[in-house]
Amino acid sequence: MSEEAMTRFPVPDTDDLPDDLRQRIDEETERAGFTPNVFEAYAYKPSHFRAFFAYYDALVDDTPLAREEVEMIVVATSGANDCLYCVVAHGALCRIYADAPKLADQLATNHRAADVSTEHRAMLDFAVKLTESPEAVTEEDVAALRDAGFSQEEIWDIGSVAAFFNLSNRMAVLADMRPNDEFYTLGRDA
Amino acid sequence: MSEEAMTRFPVPDTDDLPDDLRQRIDEETERAGFTPNVFEAYAYKPSHFRAFFAYYDALVDDTPLAREEVEMIVVATSGANDCLYCVVAHGALCRIYADAPKLADQLATNHRAADVSTEHRAMLDFAVKLTESPEAVTEEDVAALRDAGFSQEEIWDIGSVAAFFNLSNRMAVLADMRPNDEFYTLGRDA
Amino acid sequence: MSEEAMTRFPVPDTDDLPDDLRQRIDEETERAGFTPNVFEAYAYKPSHFRAFFAYYDALVDDTPLAREEVEMIVVATSGANDCLYCVVAHGALCRIYADAPKLADQLATNHRAADVSTEHRAMLDFAVKLTESPEAVTEEDVAALRDAGFSQEEIWDIGSVAAFFNLSNRMAVLADMRPNDEFYTLGRDA
Amino acid sequence: MSEEAMTRFPVPDTDDLPDDLRQRIDEETERAGFTPNVFEAYAYKPSHFRAFFAYYDALVDDTPLAREEVEMIVVATSGANDCLYCVVAHGALCRIYADAPKLADQLATNHRAADVSTEHRAMLDFAVKLTESPEAVTEEDVAALRDAGFSQEEIWDIGSVAAFFNLSNRMAVLADMRPNDEFYTLGRDA
Amino acid sequence: MSEEAMTRFPVPDTDDLPDDLRQRIDEETERAGFTPNVFEAYAYKPSHFRAFFAYYDALVDDTPLAREEVEMIVVATSGANDCLYCVVAHGALCRIYADAPKLADQLATNHRAADVSTEHRAMLDFAVKLTESPEAVTEEDVAALRDAGFSQEEIWDIGSVAAFFNLSNRMAVLADMRPNDEFYTLGRDA
Amino acid sequence: MSEEAMTRFPVPDTDDLPDDLRQRIDEETERAGFTPNVFEAYAYKPSHFRAFFAYYDALVDDTPLAREEVEMIVVATSGANDCLYCVVAHGALCRIYADAPKLADQLATNHRAADVSTEHRAMLDFAVKLTESPEAVTEEDVAALRDAGFSQEEIWDIGSVAAFFNLSNRMAVLADMRPNDEFYTLGRDA
Repeated sequence: MSEEAMTRFPVPDTDDLPDDLRQRIDEETERAGFTPNVFEAYAYKPSHFRAFFAYYDALVDDTPLAREEVEMIVVATSGANDCLYCVVAHGALCRIYADAPKLADQLATNHRAADVSTEHRAMLDFAVKLTESPEAVTEEDVAALRDAGFSQEEIWDIGSVAAFFNLSNRMAVLADMRPNDEFYTLGRDA
Repeated sequence: MSEEAMTRFPVPDTDDLPDDLRQRIDEETERAGFTPNVFEAYAYKPSHFRAFFAYYDALVDDTPLAREEVEMIVVATSGANDCLYCVVAHGALCRIYADAPKLADQLATNHRAADVSTEHRAMLDFAVKLTESPEAVTEEDVAALRDAGFSQEEIWDIGSVAAFFNLSNRMAVLADMRPNDEFYTLGRDA
Repeated sequence: MSEEAMTRFPVPDTDDLPDDLRQRIDEETERAGFTPNVFEAYAYKPSHFRAFFAYYDALVDDTPLAREEVEMIVVATSGANDCLYCVVAHGALCRIYADAPKLADQLATNHRAADVSTEHRAMLDFAVKLTESPEAVTEEDVAALRDAGFSQEEIWDIGSVAAFFNLSNRMAVLADMRPNDEFYTLGRDA
Repeated sequence: MSEEAMTRFPVPDTDDLPDDLRQRIDEETERAGFTPNVFEAYAYKPSHFRAFFAYYDALVDDTPLAREEVEMIVVATSGANDCLYCVVAHGALCRIYADAPKLADQLATNHRAADVSTEHRAMLDFAVKLTESPEAVTEEDVAALRDAGFSQEEIWDIGSVAAFFNLSNRMAVLADMRPNDEFYTLGRDA
Repeated sequence: MSEEAMTRFPVPDTDDLPDDLRQRIDEETERAGFTPNVFEAYAYKPSHFRAFFAYYDALVDDTPLAREEVEMIVVATSGANDCLYCVVAHGALCRIYADAPKLADQLATNHRAADVSTEHRAMLDFAVKLTESPEAVTEEDVAALRDAGFSQEEIWDIGSVAAFFNLSNRMAVLADMRPNDEFYTLGRDA
Repeated sequence: MSEEAMTRFPVPDTDDLPDDLRQRIDEETERAGFTPNVFEAYAYKPSHFRAFFAYYDALVDDTPLAREEVEMIVVATSGANDCLYCVVAHGALCRIYADAPKLADQLATNHRAADVSTEHRAMLDFAVKLTESPEAVTEEDVAALRDAGFSQEEIWDIGSVAAFFNLSNRMAVLADMRPNDEFYTLGRDA
């Protein structure tokens, strides 16, 4: 039996939710085969649910970044913030989209020890610096992304994914969101 | 003459924007008497613009927190992250909504030195800890908010405002967003 | 195909090793079904190999702590130090000895978010503080372990396991030891 | 009168110790003219005593590093970890082996202010970084040692000494080991 | 009505002060149009008052640095230390001497986001590093000032201003000195 | 032969100094039997020399604190800032005034491991917190000093000594001041 979606706020009954939330949750459940707990947790506040997932959808749908690149940034950022829910849930997505069963554990532990290309290392260095020391990010850091071959829009998006998960990680900590059991093992087969 | 909205990405011409963005920018310009640069900057990527401001609207419109409380959290969080745009722009909003011309400078510099009530001090301690050490936030920190009299939804919202500005601060740093000249002085008269 | 045992120093051919090292490696290989890379890596310097594993053997064999407790401390310590090899290899051992397929990912990410008893939380708080801020450990921290019910020898051993992996994590980083593929998945089935 | 060897665990009576421990303690006492407290302290747990000193012996006996280099690394590492026992006891050894009465105080306070060669500065920079930020040590740091002229085995040993004293410093803190009075003054005459 | 000069120590009645203190306070009051609270606060201990302001006078009067440069260093240093009194009081002086109404808010929040010349950026980088990580300041950092064109005496003075405000910031925190209301708004008109 | 007084600025010839500086240096030389390098170094800028030593004189002469208490604060503060000159020079003064040959090494390494009374531990905890995290010092910290029995003026002076050495440590680092050889050994005999 899986854990509750979160421990610090009540999880609303899906039947009581506004139609658009219920529909999104149904779609996610159908796609994954289970309901990722972040949807149940965010349903506590429907206006936040809508905005949060609209932003997330934009990050993964409207971007020149490959989906695996998005998930790599998510896992490295969430590892830097020690966020259990995001490390485990997006660890699964990272393994699946990158078709790389070891990558998420490497990125969550220390992106410097991960088996990634030089370009992706630059991308992750930037995301982790923006996470840990935003005040120290300067033109030089942005130039390093350009030098690694990223376009202007890719740079905006790399920063945006890292920034968004600095929100997401803190919401997961606030609510003590618990990863679904399924996420711990998904995508671990080579 | 005010500075450009941001230095690291091109600011699109308002005329070229989708209708909903142009309409929102027009409304904001009418309300403020000038166009806050964050709107011009975020217009670089319309899908992000929509999600970002939908989230922001939910935070300030759909909450039992007073607007001045929201702005106090924003300024303390942005001060902790050393984010120029958010400190200056929301410093103005904080002064105006709290009708307190010295409050924003106090919160941006060090919330522990600000003239605030015991309850607001607890609220700000939580927001700053969630900002600086999210990994160390535990049940005890949440209990301190409850002890200070905040309701469950207020606690969700205090955390949400801090979390959202951890996104916002990083986007402002990424793009090097520049505060409008007006924000530096708005609300400084007692 | 698994990665090399480490990238920064040459891995000696097992046939060229002193008898006692070869015998130990054979035993470990038989037990695990594969040769954990830390043995191949430490064989670079036989005198260090002997001392390192003698210490490790004492920590797991000569202690009132349960083996699962030892591995919990190892994973939390290694997570705090962002050490890939130890997180992945001892993550597997932690899952197996604790018969808890989710525990290692929780401890490696953030021990405060792990499903553990109050006593184990105290044990892990101590290990992580000794890891991150040894200079700040005082009598109060030791008293908290006593209050949680740990005996004098258990306290010595909790500290010793954490201290030893502060050595081990740094050797793995120095040599860039790579976890065997097997460790990523071992013990993940409930 | 010298202080007790440690304050948090009982120091066993030497007569009750296993022969090999008693013999080692006798040898150390004869060599130094007094019994260094680390031996009395570690005798609390004979299996750890044996492994700890076997590792230490390997570090100082089986290495191309000069003994004074080993002690320089020990003092800089222990200073970075604010470890009283190791700073004072190995400070004495550092003064003696390097025949440099001011060196240990310089290294313990700030290795950047010490009178050392460029090569030794590189060695100490590496040891202190491995101590303070192991997660950030990368190929570049190892290359800096190579550029300074250190051989592969010397690099392994520089890292090993620093890593071992990250164990040792934490054991001394755990047990509150107290330096013998003699160590404070040994080797201070030019 | 302005706040008390400080909350943690009694502010002496000006009439009871030694003549030289009363005279200095009168001069400052005449110059500013109000009595800056730091004078009232430091009057708690006349011997410290005399030494503190003698040092301050030397820093601003006996230096090849422009007064606006001194105040820029003061504000960046005080921002790095989160010191309310110094950020607000010297923020006013910075705006006035640099004739730059936005500069102080920029420097107090994050000197990297301030509109300053390359030379002043180097000056502020040095001051902030000397403030936050004095142990890590090395010859390279001093050389960067030389490369930016600062003379030997200017380098001494840049460091001295930063060092002095590391004293001043801590005294303001100790006493909880409160900025006069006037400082919040002085010099904000373009 | 002792080292130069400092490496980054020229040390003026004593004969060329203003009379008051020369007289002070003569007095210090007579008292100590050698010229402490801080006097030679500060003579680089006579106006700073006068103010610096006037402040220092006030701290040690006009205070209810015992001189040994002043020196204990100096050494703990300078140890926290890793300042070689102040640790070594004031370490000697601390040993002499406290008549405690081991105390300075303990305080410089880690004041938590020093043999001091509960009251002095509270005093040093405050000084080190004011040094390392001035922004986090609050009423509670000041209350802890009061609870330990310190008077209002003693609290001002404890903070003042720590604050002044936050200036002094940074000047010593800036100039790379070198401790006189004599300071390393003075006061080490029981």
